[in-house]
Amino acid sequence: MSPQVSSETTNDGKRGRHFASRMEKTPKSFIREILKVTENPSIISFAGGLPNPGLIDIQGIRLAAATVLGQDDRSVLQYSTTEGYLPLRQFIAERYRKRLGLSVSPEEILITNGSQQCLDLIGKVFIDKGDHVAIERPGYVGAIQAFSLHEPVFHPVSLNEDGPDPLMLANVLEKRPVKLFYGVPNSQNPSGITYTSPRRLELATIIGNTNTLFVEDDAYGELNFSGKNLPSMREFLPDQTIITGSFSKILAPGMRLGWVVAPPDVMEVLVIAKQASDLHSNYLSQRIAYQYLQQQNIDDHIRKICTVYKTQCHLMINMIREKFPGSVLYTVPEGGMFIWLTLPDGISSTRVFEDALKEGVAVLPGTPFYTDGGGGNTIRLNFSNSTEQKIMTGMERFSQVLRTLM
Amino acid sequence: MSPQVSSETTNDGKRGRHFASRMEKTPKSFIREILKVTENPSIISFAGGLPNPGLIDIQGIRLAAATVLGQDDRSVLQYSTTEGYLPLRQFIAERYRKRLGLSVSPEEILITNGSQQCLDLIGKVFIDKGDHVAIERPGYVGAIQAFSLHEPVFHPVSLNEDGPDPLMLANVLEKRPVKLFYGVPNSQNPSGITYTSPRRLELATIIGNTNTLFVEDDAYGELNFSGKNLPSMREFLPDQTIITGSFSKILAPGMRLGWVVAPPDVMEVLVIAKQASDLHSNYLSQRIAYQYLQQQNIDDHIRKICTVYKTQCHLMINMIREKFPGSVLYTVPEGGMFIWLTLPDGISSTRVFEDALKEGVAVLPGTPFYTDGGGGNTIRLNFSNSTEQKIMTGMERFSQVLRTLM
Repeated sequence: MSPQVSSETTNDGKRGRHFASRMEKTPKSFIREILKVTENPSIISFAGGLPNPGLIDIQGIRLAAATVLGQDDRSVLQYSTTEGYLPLRQFIAERYRKRLGLSVSPEEILITNGSQQCLDLIGKVFIDKGDHVAIERPGYVGAIQAFSLHEPVFHPVSLNEDGPDPLMLANVLEKRPVKLFYGVPNSQNPSGITYTSPRRLELATIIGNTNTLFVEDDAYGELNFSGKNLPSMREFLPDQTIITGSFSKILAPGMRLGWVVAPPDVMEVLVIAKQASDLHSNYLSQRIAYQYLQQQNIDDHIRKICTVYKTQCHLMINMIREKFPGSVLYTVPEGGMFIWLTLPDGISSTRVFEDALKEGVAVLPGTPFYTDGGGGNTIRLNFSNSTEQKIMTGMERFSQVLRTLM
Repeated sequence: MSPQVSSETTNDGKRGRHFASRMEKTPKSFIREILKVTENPSIISFAGGLPNPGLIDIQGIRLAAATVLGQDDRSVLQYSTTEGYLPLRQFIAERYRKRLGLSVSPEEILITNGSQQCLDLIGKVFIDKGDHVAIERPGYVGAIQAFSLHEPVFHPVSLNEDGPDPLMLANVLEKRPVKLFYGVPNSQNPSGITYTSPRRLELATIIGNTNTLFVEDDAYGELNFSGKNLPSMREFLPDQTIITGSFSKILAPGMRLGWVVAPPDVMEVLVIAKQASDLHSNYLSQRIAYQYLQQQNIDDHIRKICTVYKTQCHLMINMIREKFPGSVLYTVPEGGMFIWLTLPDGISSTRVFEDALKEGVAVLPGTPFYTDGGGGNTIRLNFSNSTEQKIMTGMERFSQVLRTLM
């Protein structure tokens, strides 16, 4: 009766477990480990990637929840459709029209368990082991993780000030069939870079000549400090763009609501993958979110978030300008939640991380954002989940660490 | 600029999309298509698999939501840990101890987006393309779908009155390394069969001599009409059992809360897969569920559900006994939500389905529950999402269809 496994040969050294080969290729979250270290309340952390909890409208969500649950309509707690609550999908479609002039039908929208799940579903639907996937360099670590489960070959494309390097992308796409190019055109995580309008067009021209799909992760498009929206890649590549969106940054991350926009023939297959994955997304949350969007003015709420984030971002930039050694390069985001630092060659961001932690400030070394082992001199700073006081104190401490090291 | 894809060669006939090969092997939900047909309110449906919405305690959930959202604690809406809310995991662990005398630590529990997601995560973590997976025949269609994404070879093991056929299982496990045996020991979906205690021990003895993991789907263990609990496979195979559990049948499916119990070394890898899949499960729902479990008596609530389901089940069984042709075989469930019919050879359940629909009653043909194309003379009946009146009228109609056909 006693299990025999412990004495057998292993492929992972643990009790004879034979895990799938994909698990060896999926990086354990380095960030998650770092965040554990920085949980000490005496540490000022710019290492995480959380929205500012003070800007979550808990009163509005409370009212929406009370309304949804107040009508003795038990269907709000029952199983529901895989695609998601239709009125919520209609709201999202209408918002694309109003905000970006983009034509999207509700049938092209699937509600997901946060936008991270979009990446899981896209990976499932498109990536066979050994398939080629192009990604920004640096690229979003959550996408690297989700896609890694399907064992692709990554082709990093340098992300410059105006967006991904077009020559490098053309070169990558020319040499092999690439299933997906994954990018974050608006206020990218981790770099804070926004693609310029001409660069978007240039990228679309290159991709339009191939069979590659552009996966446009737009988690930060609404967190736009100027309020001026740049075109979605779907405008140029309607049949080759998959957009992923999220309520996490504008409503509440804990409700785990995101969505994916895809052309009908892709949507049909995404829905099958979604159903096999978890039947459907949290229906109560969908109903509460929709009720919230009916009862409150989401535009006012987003403006409020943007005002705070913009102030905090500019304060952080000013501290960099005033206090950092001149050889530290930094991005100036137009939105989102992150600033990206490039230290002079030879300065290790892991060393900087360790020294900064001793001084009571946490930053995030940039290496997990590289699929090719680079980025050892880069650092991500988060300005959203902070206060002006914390930014001043934390950046003062951090500048001293940098000045000592450099 | 215009996309070139439409003129290229295809692997699926649609606009040059090159989907991953796994998507060709993942069955589109036949059940989902059938349920669309049966949405007509004039049809009495025994085809679905929903809990009875009238037994969802919306008042209790409303109170729990108001409590959780009433404290201006925005952390209930923020990002949270991948493993899930610790007090909820502690509650689940303690319930295993009280209900089954089973020792489970909270660290061995991961909260998932319904128990369907457990199957997705288990598939990700264990199944490489071509790996061998044993499954009950008939087996739960959601597991067939979730595992199919990872392209295993299925080995069906006949499910008899006392549980899976032990000789057949031994034979399957002897001939090849089998990664997983997936089974539903309590009130199985679709058959309603509960493994006997001696059969559990017998299966454990066979599996204990191999490297195979027993995936024990226990979605229905709490819906036990007698209140007498049979031992979990984990009692016999502590290091070789993964249990999946669900709040969908005892609290509310729309909150999408399930959990997986696994030994620590497996849990470590499941957590990585979970994080890559969707970061973490809906945190607001976790907090509301935990609050509900503190404020209400879940045992009383479960007893109430069981009383109704038992009455409805027995009524359906009595109708079968009184009205059906004697050659129709049926199971007599000890719990759960389903009764399983086996028609005489040569009677097609698809034909029965079509004829029944014309008479205003929907039943579910059993073929989607077979990985080997069998089951063409089987039918699943759901008794949970019904009323006594509907069961009497619907079963009367259905018996006439059967008598006419046979």
